[in-house]
Amino acid sequence: MRIGMIAALVACVFGTAGAQQRNPATQPAAVRSPEFSTDHRVTFRLYAPKATEAFLRGDFLADRVAMHKDEHGLWTVTVGPFQPDIYAYEFQLDGVRVLDPNNPAMKYSSRPREASSLLEVADDKPMFYDARRVPHGTVHERWYSSKSLDTERRIHVYTPPDYEHSSTRYPVLYLLHGAGGDDAVWTVLGHANLMLDNLIADGKLQPLVVVMTYGYAYPPNDPAYDGAQQRTGFVRDLLEDVIPFVQANYRVNTDRDKRAIAGLSMGGEQAINIGLHHPELFSRVAGFSSGFVGNFKDNYKDVLGNSQKLNADIKLLWMTCGTEDRLFAPNQEFSELLKAGGIKHTFRSTQGNHTWQVWRRALHEVAPMMFPKA
Amino acid sequence: MRIGMIAALVACVFGTAGAQQRNPATQPAAVRSPEFSTDHRVTFRLYAPKATEAFLRGDFLADRVAMHKDEHGLWTVTVGPFQPDIYAYEFQLDGVRVLDPNNPAMKYSSRPREASSLLEVADDKPMFYDARRVPHGTVHERWYSSKSLDTERRIHVYTPPDYEHSSTRYPVLYLLHGAGGDDAVWTVLGHANLMLDNLIADGKLQPLVVVMTYGYAYPPNDPAYDGAQQRTGFVRDLLEDVIPFVQANYRVNTDRDKRAIAGLSMGGEQAINIGLHHPELFSRVAGFSSGFVGNFKDNYKDVLGNSQKLNADIKLLWMTCGTEDRLFAPNQEFSELLKAGGIKHTFRSTQGNHTWQVWRRALHEVAPMMFPKA
Repeated sequence: MRIGMIAALVACVFGTAGAQQRNPATQPAAVRSPEFSTDHRVTFRLYAPKATEAFLRGDFLADRVAMHKDEHGLWTVTVGPFQPDIYAYEFQLDGVRVLDPNNPAMKYSSRPREASSLLEVADDKPMFYDARRVPHGTVHERWYSSKSLDTERRIHVYTPPDYEHSSTRYPVLYLLHGAGGDDAVWTVLGHANLMLDNLIADGKLQPLVVVMTYGYAYPPNDPAYDGAQQRTGFVRDLLEDVIPFVQANYRVNTDRDKRAIAGLSMGGEQAINIGLHHPELFSRVAGFSSGFVGNFKDNYKDVLGNSQKLNADIKLLWMTCGTEDRLFAPNQEFSELLKAGGIKHTFRSTQGNHTWQVWRRALHEVAPMMFPKA
Repeated sequence: MRIGMIAALVACVFGTAGAQQRNPATQPAAVRSPEFSTDHRVTFRLYAPKATEAFLRGDFLADRVAMHKDEHGLWTVTVGPFQPDIYAYEFQLDGVRVLDPNNPAMKYSSRPREASSLLEVADDKPMFYDARRVPHGTVHERWYSSKSLDTERRIHVYTPPDYEHSSTRYPVLYLLHGAGGDDAVWTVLGHANLMLDNLIADGKLQPLVVVMTYGYAYPPNDPAYDGAQQRTGFVRDLLEDVIPFVQANYRVNTDRDKRAIAGLSMGGEQAINIGLHHPELFSRVAGFSSGFVGNFKDNYKDVLGNSQKLNADIKLLWMTCGTEDRLFAPNQEFSELLKAGGIKHTFRSTQGNHTWQVWRRALHEVAPMMFPKA
């Protein structure tokens, strides 16, 4: 009861003051958006009486969909039903990108014009990325001093259930984010920790440590961002700072046979690039919707000329990409290049676009291939 | 270089498609917002050619400020300069709450119509909440099974530098968030971990463990949310589930003399309510901009009638509130009530409103009073 009152008071202080509050008669009491109907369709609403056009865009839609305005100024559109998953959307209101003000669930990005609202379509039973009543691992947020980049940086580290009470040295996966992401995004949007808890509880995955790095040498808004150091800077930070820090502070197995690297988009290209050029460090390599652009082939000449050694060293080389993704063609091209060079690998084409729906499933599929439960 | 190309490609796939992209001639190449000038003023911009009015609202402004549209449809306003701090703002575009699409820094909330964009005004030297090159603690994200609420829930736990390599049992602070927050918000928006690292490094604060709980028994969008169980549910979860979980999994001192509780807004009222009713558990109690609403006095009758015992048990009872905050009056009233009842306490009125500028400083001030460096 009291909390309800606090909510009312705080909403009064910090809610939508100004123009709307001054004309309460014209304002709907509470705009519900998104709202699910019993037939599992979803209605999106936005109160914007002065706007002349509004569209809904979302990664659950092939194209943007026009919204319709009623006589009170409330824009509405109903779409779906959709498969259970977590989707991203936003409104275009007279050409302006607007997050759904009535939906607190948001997808963040470190780059402009990429934040979205989130639509979570639940299933009758928990999804593979939902919190179940199983033993849970811990996610550690750790700051470290990067000597190679001369700055304080952060990583997130997943340790499996029982890590604190065991003396095991665990296999370790270095897991990289995409452009616009950061070291938190694989847990915040990817639910990596919950997914791994579930795989371990279901006996499909060895307990492991997962290190989620910050993939930019310099943040996107840093003047140094576009320089050549961006690429080499991250590699140095990973090899000279992150891996030694992890091995000094976590009980990870330091054998290359127990060290893997994977990533999505920008991080997929980083993972494959670093993994294939450092087989002395990594034995399992995966890229999801990897950001192969430009003259990417040049970068792999040495690797392609050495297929026998690479096939012996790399126990798993796994790639996936959604067929609707604009990066599908370069991923397919890279797979053809590997094939022509005699490099053993799997290229798994999947339904979908450049979205978290693909990446959550990719991690769920590849982690048990890297470190299957014995 | 390659990353720049990836950024361009990904922006092409996921950027502002649709209406704007179809008329590239009318769209500024890159809208910079917010932008600092050499005189430390800040310019906010929003491209919205069809809009008829736009305002800037922010917790650095006493009132909303009108923006002005140029002939290309770009709305602009310049304000400031402002003291170094982290502020929240949003645009009102024809009455619609719009986050700044060109600024990726966002303040989240678990409640509708409360998300904002963030404005970080840097100083020449690091602020008290910035990452400095000092030994860092770790923030643990932990899931636990709440028996009292029959659900899987999450806490964040800060452990101090060297925790992993010591056998010390540390003092512990239970730190509660406000309405719309969650267990992550004290680190994400409050920078609590970085602030504590700095205080410990500067010799002002004993190394301690800080437990950041999830303050809702039921999330704001849950049908059970408004019930009476909301209030009692959180208390039960804290006392019967969280504290035993923490004491089983972390080296915390279990003496009441080494256990503190503090919170902001809704969590400030929770901290004072729980702390004063459970002096057998807590010896240090603090509330920041506490959400005293309704007949709050009734809830403290027993406490007020027992001032001698309370004054002996509670080593620190500390309250703060910004003078511009609508909760200032009830906080002052609560302080008067304590005074009339002979309860020793400090009520520290401070400049400011119901904002993180006040709460970051409050934690920074009170933590060393709770557990000063010996």
